[in-house]
Amino acid sequence: MSVKIDGDRLWSRLMQMARIGGFGEGGVNRQALSDDEHAAWAQMIAWGDEIGLEPSTDAAANLFLTLPGQDRDLPPLLAGSHLDSQPTGGRFDGVFGVLAALEAVTAMAGAGHRPVRDVVVVAWMNEEGSRFAPGMMGSEVFAGNRNIADVRATSDAEGILCGDEIDRIHAAFPALRTRRAFQPLAYVEPHIEQGPELERSGHAIGVVSGIQGKITTEVTLTGRAGHAGTEPMATRRDAVMAFARVASALQEGVGKFETDIRFTIGRVEVTPNAPSVIASEVRFRTDLRHPRNDVLDAAAERLHRIVEQEASPCTARIETLVNAPSNAFDPVLQARIAEAAEANGHRCRSIASAAGHDARHVATLCPSAMIFIPCKEGISHDPSESATREDVIAGAEVLLDVLLASAEGVRSPVSD
Amino acid sequence: MSVKIDGDRLWSRLMQMARIGGFGEGGVNRQALSDDEHAAWAQMIAWGDEIGLEPSTDAAANLFLTLPGQDRDLPPLLAGSHLDSQPTGGRFDGVFGVLAALEAVTAMAGAGHRPVRDVVVVAWMNEEGSRFAPGMMGSEVFAGNRNIADVRATSDAEGILCGDEIDRIHAAFPALRTRRAFQPLAYVEPHIEQGPELERSGHAIGVVSGIQGKITTEVTLTGRAGHAGTEPMATRRDAVMAFARVASALQEGVGKFETDIRFTIGRVEVTPNAPSVIASEVRFRTDLRHPRNDVLDAAAERLHRIVEQEASPCTARIETLVNAPSNAFDPVLQARIAEAAEANGHRCRSIASAAGHDARHVATLCPSAMIFIPCKEGISHDPSESATREDVIAGAEVLLDVLLASAEGVRSPVSD
Repeated sequence: MSVKIDGDRLWSRLMQMARIGGFGEGGVNRQALSDDEHAAWAQMIAWGDEIGLEPSTDAAANLFLTLPGQDRDLPPLLAGSHLDSQPTGGRFDGVFGVLAALEAVTAMAGAGHRPVRDVVVVAWMNEEGSRFAPGMMGSEVFAGNRNIADVRATSDAEGILCGDEIDRIHAAFPALRTRRAFQPLAYVEPHIEQGPELERSGHAIGVVSGIQGKITTEVTLTGRAGHAGTEPMATRRDAVMAFARVASALQEGVGKFETDIRFTIGRVEVTPNAPSVIASEVRFRTDLRHPRNDVLDAAAERLHRIVEQEASPCTARIETLVNAPSNAFDPVLQARIAEAAEANGHRCRSIASAAGHDARHVATLCPSAMIFIPCKEGISHDPSESATREDVIAGAEVLLDVLLASAEGVRSPVSD
Repeated sequence: MSVKIDGDRLWSRLMQMARIGGFGEGGVNRQALSDDEHAAWAQMIAWGDEIGLEPSTDAAANLFLTLPGQDRDLPPLLAGSHLDSQPTGGRFDGVFGVLAALEAVTAMAGAGHRPVRDVVVVAWMNEEGSRFAPGMMGSEVFAGNRNIADVRATSDAEGILCGDEIDRIHAAFPALRTRRAFQPLAYVEPHIEQGPELERSGHAIGVVSGIQGKITTEVTLTGRAGHAGTEPMATRRDAVMAFARVASALQEGVGKFETDIRFTIGRVEVTPNAPSVIASEVRFRTDLRHPRNDVLDAAAERLHRIVEQEASPCTARIETLVNAPSNAFDPVLQARIAEAAEANGHRCRSIASAAGHDARHVATLCPSAMIFIPCKEGISHDPSESATREDVIAGAEVLLDVLLASAEGVRSPVSD
């Protein structure tokens, strides 16, 4: 009996999952470690139970569902993505990769195929970084690149500690084994592109060459509060006005610095944020990305200079929260993805990832790669985020073949 | 026995009140209808009890403390201000006027002086407008210029209804009589200047000629959410960047439009406000003031034009929340204030109010006036807000004499 993806099952599970945290027309708000993510875990574990997957978790509240292999001592194959979404996210970002991996092992189990080694479906904790910042906490801890104590000490906008929320999800699933760190053989992550390239060029599959570099900073502009109706314009130290100048200058000086640069101010917090009080403080995040590390570093230098130049009469403090250089994925896995796409009749091309992904961190631990599928108009992090049923199934078919091809070798089948 | 202000008692009560909602060095966060305002009411009622003041309230949760006069049927004299503060307010804004009025009637009662008519100390509900917008709700309803149903339907940032909070404070003080609207003989409001003029010119008392006009608008810039790492700069409709452009252009085009203009953006709300999501919406308040109504109207027109010009590629919606033209206070009351200042040896001058006050609304109901005292460097709505003990006492002395002079006449002693 050959191992085949069940496209109807995969698509129907995607639409079922979209209802957990769903709002409006296609909107999903399923933030990290929220009650909705608890519900998503419960659904994943239930689907896993149907085919005998072993659920487990770790100190960082990553969720693992293991299809047992013939030799349980071999390093397992790992595939998946994340279940959390942005507060105004859509139905595909993250969850597609997790369900494609679940579909791949479900297809194996359904066909009575027992792989040589364990195949583990993973859902990483807090990829999005919207509730607890920065993102990709679960994969970064798993890869040994971030301290679990730092992650636990992070708090959300309401002051709730990430550590308490990790304990809460563990307590909600008392039957789950907590596993220690383990060394996978390889990691493969399917994901929507979150950009317009594949749709434009008419390819169903993107073989991801690497992830562009990213620098995230937090800028605090400090002014002085005052009465909106009385304090003369000339003596004000208005933090909102300083923000407007700084942000406009950054848009010109950094946002247009070089082709392919991405510059965003997505979060802005004003203090005291009262209509008739001159703001004493504005704190904001800058998100800067580029495929080339030299360009990225030069843009970050410009950012620092512009903030310092334009902040006056307020003062500025700049803190670098994330400095993640660009990385390249494993070439053998990339070749397997291309072969699998061809074998299944899906047009594929090489593509760089403009977005950060958990695979960036896992790649420091084991050979890793990503499979992209197109999304409509490149839109993501929005209720209008959309991918076709055909492309979703194509991505799962390619993942299945890559896993089948990679699982067989007793020793590492991929390059170092 | 002559009627005299007790400066020690007044100052010590001010410092006591500053501890209700107090934080840090001089900071006060005692927002409208909060638990801290409940505590402030309880303290006011207790001080009133000591000298037999009758506490009451009305449908808008204004607090009244009445010193009974000889003829209870005569229209009462009204004096006071508000107990609520901005979230990062100081120790004097509002509460000084209420405690100066309490001190004036306490001095009368202590000297065995029974005025011809009732003298009523008032604390208006929600002057600041930071929790429930716009401000001056209590005085506006009292003056018959705003519908109580509209006030009750307003909600704060957490979605709590003002009406529920009015019911809550009424329930917390079940012994208070709820009075209907009444026609006062006159209203006098002492307040810190919230500007630098009196301090600069060395005057302890400002006879307020009127209040500058104010136009408050809410602007909503609508863009489109997207992924910070992928969406090309050229195709974005980034609401934060539109805000930066609009705010910078408003600062130039409206904030520098004319001498004596005051232009502030104090509240900014970003949606979804996540670090790696291009903002789909920015909603902000503009606060525009000028003593001359023609200048104010011209500046508001400019504001509309600039918002519409600079919003692209986002769309803009502008709503006018407050349009309060400048007003002039009662000349007879102004003369009495000047006479009282002179009689007590305090230098006084005429001054226009740059800030809005409850007296603006009460002035549409009865002859009204305001007594200003200096505040340090003109700073208010900030923990560093400060006034001297001497000036606080001077303000109360002048208020007492104005009340004594105004209470005696059986018919209206002031102009229409």
